[in-house]
Amino acid sequence: MEDAGLRTWVDQMGNVHGRVDGANANTEALLIGSHMDTVIDAGKFDGALGIVSAISALKVMHVNGKLQNLRRPVEVIAFCDEEGVRFQTTFLGSGAIAGILSATTLEIPDKKNVTIKDVLKENSLEATEESLLKLKYDPKSVWGYVELHIEQGPVLEQVGFPIGVVKGIAGQTRLKVTVKGSQGHAGTVPMSMRQDPMVAAAEQIVLMESLCKHPEEYLSSEGHCSVSSIKSLSSSLVCTVGEISTWPSASNVTYTMDIRAIDDLGREAVIYDLSNRIYQICDKRSVSCLIEHKHDAGAVICDSELSSQLKSAAYSALKRMEDDIQDEVPILMSGAGHDAMAMSRLTKVLTSFLFLSVYRWECYLYDVVEA
Amino acid sequence: MEDAGLRTWVDQMGNVHGRVDGANANTEALLIGSHMDTVIDAGKFDGALGIVSAISALKVMHVNGKLQNLRRPVEVIAFCDEEGVRFQTTFLGSGAIAGILSATTLEIPDKKNVTIKDVLKENSLEATEESLLKLKYDPKSVWGYVELHIEQGPVLEQVGFPIGVVKGIAGQTRLKVTVKGSQGHAGTVPMSMRQDPMVAAAEQIVLMESLCKHPEEYLSSEGHCSVSSIKSLSSSLVCTVGEISTWPSASNVTYTMDIRAIDDLGREAVIYDLSNRIYQICDKRSVSCLIEHKHDAGAVICDSELSSQLKSAAYSALKRMEDDIQDEVPILMSGAGHDAMAMSRLTKVLTSFLFLSVYRWECYLYDVVEA
Repeated sequence: MEDAGLRTWVDQMGNVHGRVDGANANTEALLIGSHMDTVIDAGKFDGALGIVSAISALKVMHVNGKLQNLRRPVEVIAFCDEEGVRFQTTFLGSGAIAGILSATTLEIPDKKNVTIKDVLKENSLEATEESLLKLKYDPKSVWGYVELHIEQGPVLEQVGFPIGVVKGIAGQTRLKVTVKGSQGHAGTVPMSMRQDPMVAAAEQIVLMESLCKHPEEYLSSEGHCSVSSIKSLSSSLVCTVGEISTWPSASNVTYTMDIRAIDDLGREAVIYDLSNRIYQICDKRSVSCLIEHKHDAGAVICDSELSSQLKSAAYSALKRMEDDIQDEVPILMSGAGHDAMAMSRLTKVLTSFLFLSVYRWECYLYDVVEA
Repeated sequence: MEDAGLRTWVDQMGNVHGRVDGANANTEALLIGSHMDTVIDAGKFDGALGIVSAISALKVMHVNGKLQNLRRPVEVIAFCDEEGVRFQTTFLGSGAIAGILSATTLEIPDKKNVTIKDVLKENSLEATEESLLKLKYDPKSVWGYVELHIEQGPVLEQVGFPIGVVKGIAGQTRLKVTVKGSQGHAGTVPMSMRQDPMVAAAEQIVLMESLCKHPEEYLSSEGHCSVSSIKSLSSSLVCTVGEISTWPSASNVTYTMDIRAIDDLGREAVIYDLSNRIYQICDKRSVSCLIEHKHDAGAVICDSELSSQLKSAAYSALKRMEDDIQDEVPILMSGAGHDAMAMSRLTKVLTSFLFLSVYRWECYLYDVVEA
């Protein structure tokens, strides 16, 4: 960061900051950030790319002597802990900046009973309720937040575009479905007399896929879902059964169902409809079903003005690299969570972010930032 | 056994025998048996019922002074190890009597590396290749084998009959199906771009159930399956997925499929058709499938003459208990294995057995044996 001409500091949560004031030091600042931590097998671009590319872009401007011409202050933040691997939290770093962490968070222990506060102290960082309050940025001092992240899906690669603008981060519901049937011997209970939770679960999983591929065929706009929600679902809804467990001769099958969509009302309509149909399958098969909501998070919609600027900037950058760019920069939904979710909670802050395709990640960002 | 007037001995495999010669000591004998061991949660009637009820029936005849009038010798055998829990074998006791155990079986170790031979020796039983050969009964000395077992299914209870005659023991095939898809993020891979092994497996399980409930709708008699096989399958085929495993974000789903039917050719036709359809589902979904045969065992058909005698005897016994018996004694298939499977290998031996419903198990057997 210092090499890129930035003034640097580490805050009391462990976030690393690098700032340049530009031509108007007292104007609202543009924040650019991502996270330093990652998870096993997430790949080398996860988190780090968003930090390194922001610093690189500013460094090029620094080398060319343009840093002081920036219309507003630009601050790069390397957030300390987005994944929550150690403490089962999320957005520790960006949450502190956005002011959405409560002081009790500091008391959360890891598996060895070492708390967040302990760890910060070991690293000479003093975290108290007071210091946490001080970490929160004043919304009036911030103009916007931009995050660049590697796309964690195959869309950009499929459309052959190296960069995409993100319209929002999907809301998510995680259900745990338990199907209880009757225990029986695999050889001695005739097919017609079974109350088999495995085939009930299988039928529900097949239904889930069909509904999530074609929500327009299942949800009526007369019911709980508007025409625009149904349209949004058709392009953004994703549903996954990732874990399923049973035991030989056991009478229960349990599975998790993960449902994400950019439209919150649409997602709620899907959960409502899907739950009803799951219960209907259980009734028909004389097994019992229990559906538990394990997690619910609303969608975050990116700021349309900032997104539109990023889209033009991305297009100009691409145009400069390759003359024959014809298509529009793709607009994508992010199915995964990002620090931008926390930063969006800093009121009046324009939040947006970009996806970079892993297969052509040459530094378009410089052009984007300069534009 | 001695209390019932039987001459007793323990053979070199640990089977307990009790025999009465009756009026014609040199005639072929009727053997009645079941197993002494059981498995966790099989219930108190498993195995033991077949031994105890045989002894009880003979004891009643002994008390009434009728034992010497028996037309042929009757021998009760309490088989030592049917389940194979300790050595992962099956039919250790009845297998020895039927002469289908090889000498190498004696060298099979348990988890602590103690072999069958070691255990027998600890119990003062000498087991060698020679002693094993001596255990085999001469088929010419045996007239038939009858086994009574608790029904391990719900059919008798449903039809309201306390006893049923078994027409045969189903053949069984156990498949292990592995579906390999592509690993992906639950939130970031659109539904249309997924190669999800979980939904592929779910579709296959739903298909399995449908095919096994209505084989006549799937198998054509022009193909691999005769009209009589299809008819037999419609009343006897049972298919079960008992175990399924996956991991979060893993790209493989593995499950076991257990298929049983009384008609071996029919079962083979089902396996053939089902495997083709499983592969078709994988092709359609661009995932790959591997189907492994882990176990195959042919069906055992009970002797029709002996079964018919048992049926009449069971009917007379019921008639004597309740005057208003109208229905025929039910003829059932056994989906589970029994010592009768091993005993059927003793050539020319008439094998049959009875099922007793657990909910009304008053001793009908006395009447049956006397008749």
